[in-house]
Amino acid sequence: MKLPQSLTRLIESFERLPGIGPKTAQRLTFYLLHFPQEDLETFAGALEGLKKNTHLCSICKNVSETDVCSVCGDPARDKRTIVVVANSLDSFALERTGFMGTYHILHGIIDPLNNIGPEEIFIKELVDRVEGLAGEVSFENVDNPGTVEIIIATNMSMEGESTSMYISKMLRERGLDGGKVKITRIARGLPVGGDVEYADDITLGRALEGRFEIK
Amino acid sequence: MKLPQSLTRLIESFERLPGIGPKTAQRLTFYLLHFPQEDLETFAGALEGLKKNTHLCSICKNVSETDVCSVCGDPARDKRTIVVVANSLDSFALERTGFMGTYHILHGIIDPLNNIGPEEIFIKELVDRVEGLAGEVSFENVDNPGTVEIIIATNMSMEGESTSMYISKMLRERGLDGGKVKITRIARGLPVGGDVEYADDITLGRALEGRFEIK
Repeated sequence: MKLPQSLTRLIESFERLPGIGPKTAQRLTFYLLHFPQEDLETFAGALEGLKKNTHLCSICKNVSETDVCSVCGDPARDKRTIVVVANSLDSFALERTGFMGTYHILHGIIDPLNNIGPEEIFIKELVDRVEGLAGEVSFENVDNPGTVEIIIATNMSMEGESTSMYISKMLRERGLDGGKVKITRIARGLPVGGDVEYADDITLGRALEGRFEIK
Repeated sequence: MKLPQSLTRLIESFERLPGIGPKTAQRLTFYLLHFPQEDLETFAGALEGLKKNTHLCSICKNVSETDVCSVCGDPARDKRTIVVVANSLDSFALERTGFMGTYHILHGIIDPLNNIGPEEIFIKELVDRVEGLAGEVSFENVDNPGTVEIIIATNMSMEGESTSMYISKMLRERGLDGGKVKITRIARGLPVGGDVEYADDITLGRALEGRFEIK
């Protein structure tokens, strides 16, 4: 018994997606057979139009339908506090914390094993952006001492850590450190609800290092 | 921060699929942003064409691109042994066992809680098909005693069991039982690799009932 061509074509498309194996791809395809043709066309239209109407924000490189995204274009956002993340989904996660600064999306992390070097991701663009901001900053205003903060929020993986180190090195090489620019990294420690007993040694060590005073 | 319209449209389409929640739908959509436009169009085309070139086999109701599917049209297949399954995917699973009979796809099971009655699925078509086969069968041929076997292979769930009982009742009411037609149910017992210690009572009870002589 061979599957009809129309089904195998769709199964193959689904299989290319992350986390979708041959079994799931089959299941989804057979499920879609019960959809009205109209809904299939809506789905197909959404796929076709996905990239046609989107491009990257010229400032933060996030996915946007306008040249400057809604975050970078919002006057209420702090343009001098930039969280650097690996991808757009990470920025949405941070958004849920109520963060009111801006983002910089790298669109990947440095990963030599997968042939992703610093040139493949938007590090140069970040450095240029920070340099531009540092140029605007002035110390004359006492109320707003005018510092730029770059918060690096890549994953706590080996690749995330080395990308973080590479970025801070690049910024320092351009003199974008101390004084006008502060480079920080999000905290490492136990997650909320985490057990000390079950935490791994490295996390516990990092949690100790990052201890803070109880006030 | 709001997601661009082109992304939310695709996310909504993905969310309608089984087992895909809002998070996965987002992840898949962002993943697809890295696809070349050509591949997105192939995917979209497969979705649009899914139902255009497929219909149900006029004999077994399986999804097919021709009026009679490849199984029903194969002369090497035993047309008098019919496995009744709830959906096409089940028939593909059985196909992997090397089964050389034919199928009948119900396209659902009787499930009153979800408003699926016997009329919603292809039970009437099965009874008619079996009646037709029983009419052709002749006892005169000694080598081929001419019996029809209906193997009911719906799930071992409450709905699967009651659908199985309903089908055998329908066949009996039409006199399609004993003599020319044999109605069977796939075996219940411990799965291969199953532990007696961890098997539930009902499964163990069924495994005892279904015991067979070791030869």
